[in-house]
Amino acid sequence: MGEFLKVVHFRQAEEQVKQFFPSPRSEKLGLSAALHRVLAVPVLSPEDLPFFHRSTVDGYALDAASSYGSSESMPAYLSLRGEVKMGEASRLALQKGECCWIPTGGMLPAGADAAVMVEYTERLGDDTVLVYRPVAPWENVMQRGEDIRKDQVIMPAGKTLRPQDIGLLASLGITRVQVQSPLRVGILSTGDEIIPAEAEPGPGQVRDVNSFTLAAAVRADGGSPTNYPIIADDFSVLKEAVGQALEENDIILLSGGSSVGIMDVTLDVLLSFPGAGLLFHGVAVKPGKPTLAVSIGEKMALGLPGHPVSALMMYHVICSPALRTTRAGWVHAQLQVNLASQAGRDDFIPVVLKEEEEGIVATPLLGKSGLMRILSMADGYIHIPYEKQGLEAGQYVQVHPF
Amino acid sequence: MGEFLKVVHFRQAEEQVKQFFPSPRSEKLGLSAALHRVLAVPVLSPEDLPFFHRSTVDGYALDAASSYGSSESMPAYLSLRGEVKMGEASRLALQKGECCWIPTGGMLPAGADAAVMVEYTERLGDDTVLVYRPVAPWENVMQRGEDIRKDQVIMPAGKTLRPQDIGLLASLGITRVQVQSPLRVGILSTGDEIIPAEAEPGPGQVRDVNSFTLAAAVRADGGSPTNYPIIADDFSVLKEAVGQALEENDIILLSGGSSVGIMDVTLDVLLSFPGAGLLFHGVAVKPGKPTLAVSIGEKMALGLPGHPVSALMMYHVICSPALRTTRAGWVHAQLQVNLASQAGRDDFIPVVLKEEEEGIVATPLLGKSGLMRILSMADGYIHIPYEKQGLEAGQYVQVHPF
Repeated sequence: MGEFLKVVHFRQAEEQVKQFFPSPRSEKLGLSAALHRVLAVPVLSPEDLPFFHRSTVDGYALDAASSYGSSESMPAYLSLRGEVKMGEASRLALQKGECCWIPTGGMLPAGADAAVMVEYTERLGDDTVLVYRPVAPWENVMQRGEDIRKDQVIMPAGKTLRPQDIGLLASLGITRVQVQSPLRVGILSTGDEIIPAEAEPGPGQVRDVNSFTLAAAVRADGGSPTNYPIIADDFSVLKEAVGQALEENDIILLSGGSSVGIMDVTLDVLLSFPGAGLLFHGVAVKPGKPTLAVSIGEKMALGLPGHPVSALMMYHVICSPALRTTRAGWVHAQLQVNLASQAGRDDFIPVVLKEEEEGIVATPLLGKSGLMRILSMADGYIHIPYEKQGLEAGQYVQVHPF
Repeated sequence: MGEFLKVVHFRQAEEQVKQFFPSPRSEKLGLSAALHRVLAVPVLSPEDLPFFHRSTVDGYALDAASSYGSSESMPAYLSLRGEVKMGEASRLALQKGECCWIPTGGMLPAGADAAVMVEYTERLGDDTVLVYRPVAPWENVMQRGEDIRKDQVIMPAGKTLRPQDIGLLASLGITRVQVQSPLRVGILSTGDEIIPAEAEPGPGQVRDVNSFTLAAAVRADGGSPTNYPIIADDFSVLKEAVGQALEENDIILLSGGSSVGIMDVTLDVLLSFPGAGLLFHGVAVKPGKPTLAVSIGEKMALGLPGHPVSALMMYHVICSPALRTTRAGWVHAQLQVNLASQAGRDDFIPVVLKEEEEGIVATPLLGKSGLMRILSMADGYIHIPYEKQGLEAGQYVQVHPF
C-alpha cells in the first residue's frame, strides 16, 4: 500500500489551490453576454447619473421657497406656466411664485429646485395652482450626479455581474465590458474498470460518472470544461493524455480509481512534467482522503478520488472556492439530529433542507459514502471541523448548498 | 390621474401569475446540455445500481462466517485463492475458510458475502491470510441494487438537474433526458423619454435599462429572453409591437414610463387582444405599485413600472417565482438596524450582507428608491409584511438573494 506523502488539513489544501490557481485571461464582451462574468478591471462612471435634476413624483415643479408657509387652511397660490414633457428639456425658466406640471422622471426647468406631489395641490382654472404643503429645496427631486458622479469607481475588478449590475452599466451608456475569460478545465477519468456512460457495463465495470459531474460542476462555477476519453491505468498512456490536456487547458482534474496504487501512478506522471511541484498528497477529510494537487508551471493538476461522491465532494471543498465566479450560497439551518464524528478529521456530510415555520432544518443523509442516490437527494453539505467530536441536535449549522 | 382597477396584495399577484403562467414545451437533450434544466417527466431507473456486489475497501473477500470468533490474539487462518481484478468478473468460487484479494470497487466472487479491510489482516507466506477481526455478512460491501433498484423513480418531473443529478443519470447509463424548453420571454420598453443604451441622452432623456436588466434576470432564471426596440407611448404603435411579441413568445414583459397615464394605455392595448383577461392592476407594495398582469389566451403579459429599480424588484416579486428553474436561495440574517414601515403595504428593502463571526448580518440600503447604485450594491432584499409596522435590530430576517 502506497504512502501519502504530504497529508494536509482541508483548509490548507483549499488555500494552496487558491494560491497556485492559474490566472484567467480577459476579453471584451457586450453587456448581454456578460451576465455572471467577472470584471477584469474596475469600471469608472463616464458621466453623472442622473444627467439632469429629475422629479421623482407626478406634480408641479417650483422654487421651494414659493411654498413656504403654505398649509391646508392657507394654500400658496402659484401661477401655472405650462408643463414639462417626458424626454424633453423644458425651455421654461420659472420665477418665484410660478410652477409647471412635471411628470415622474421629468427634467426640472430652470428656476425650480423642488417638486410638490399632485396630491397636495389643486388646480384653480387654467393658470393657478394651490399648494397645500410646503416642500424643502430638492424635495422630490433626484439631483444631477446624486446617484453616481463622473469618474467614480462604480464596480471593482473581480465583481461578478448580476442583472442589476448590467442595468447600472447600461444606465451609464457602458455597453461593453472587459471581463475574465472562463478558465479552461480539462477533465480526465482513469481506471481499467471505467467504461463510457453510454456503454453496457460487464461484471465488475462501472460507468464513467465523474466526466459528467465534474464538467457540470465546472460549468456551474463559471469554468469552461472539456472532457477527454477514459484513460487506462498505465504510466505512458496517462502521461501522454495528461500532456495533451495540460497544453489545451489551464487546469486539469484527474479522477482515478480509489485505490492508492493508482494515485501513485497519477502522482508520478504529474511530477514528471518540467516545473512540477507537489502541493499536497492526501487531505485529512472523510470522504476524500486520496486527493492531490500539483502545480505545473502556470497550470495546475488536481487528482480527485475515483468514487463519484467523494470526487464531487472534494471538488467542492478544494477546487470550487478558487474557480467559482458567483458567491457561495449561505444557508443557516438547524440540525435535526445528533451527529458523531471522529476528532482529528474533517467530516463533510450531505444534508436535506426543509423549510419549517421556525426556520430551515437540516437532516443528514447517512449511509455508505458510496451511494450515488444520496448525492442527488442532498441539497448541500455540512462540515464537522477537525477539533469537534460531533454536532448536537438543535444546533445551528452552516450548509454549503450544491 | 388614472385609477388602479384591481389592486392586490403581492402574494395574490404572485399566485395569480403562477396560476395563469404559460406551460413550457419539452425537448430531449444530452446530459451535458441538460445542466440546470427541469425534467419534463419522471425518470425511472433502467437497472440496479450497483450492478454487482461491490467491495467498499481494499482487503480480502470472504464468507463472513469464516471470520467469526477471530481476534487480535486468535486470528482466523484463511487460504488465499488469488485476487479479483478491477473491472473484471472473477471466475473464483470461494469455499468456507478461503479468501481472495479484492480492491475497492472490485466485484465480490461467488461464495463471498463480505470483505475484511487489509489493515486487519496479515499475509503469511504465499497462500495464507490471517484475519484479526470478525466481519458480519455484507460488511464492507455495497450489495447489488442497494443504491437504486430497477424501475424505481429516481427523479420526479419538475426537478432541476444539478451536477450530482447528472452524475446519477450517467451512472445508470441514461445519457439523454426529456426536459422543459425554456419559456420565451419578450421584453418591451415603452416611453417617449427612453433611448437605446448606446445613445447619448439629450436633456430629459434616459437610457433603456430595463431591456438589459430584465433580459439578464430572465436568463438567470432559466428563461429565453428576446429584446424588442423601444416603443413610443402611442396606442397603435404599442398594439402592433405587443401583437408581434405575443406571437413570438410565451410571456411578454412591458416596462413603461412610471406615470399612470402610460400604464392606462398599456392596459387598454393588452385588453384589446382576443382572450385577454385582467388578473390585477396595481400591487400594494413599495416600490412598484403600478404593476399589472393580463392573461391572453395561453400567454401572459406583465406590465412593470418604468423605473429600473422598481421594475427589477417587481420582476423578482411576481414573475421570478413562476419562471425560475432553480430554487430560490435562502439566507437567514440578523438585521443590524431598526426599520420602520407603513402598515397596510408590503415593503421590499435592498440589503447588503456581511459574514460576521456570529453569523450573517443584513444592513438595509436606504435612500431614494430611484438610485441605480443601490440595486447594484445590494446582495438581496428583505420583505416587511403588510401587517407589520417595521422590524427591530437584532431580529432574524429572511433575505432573498438577487
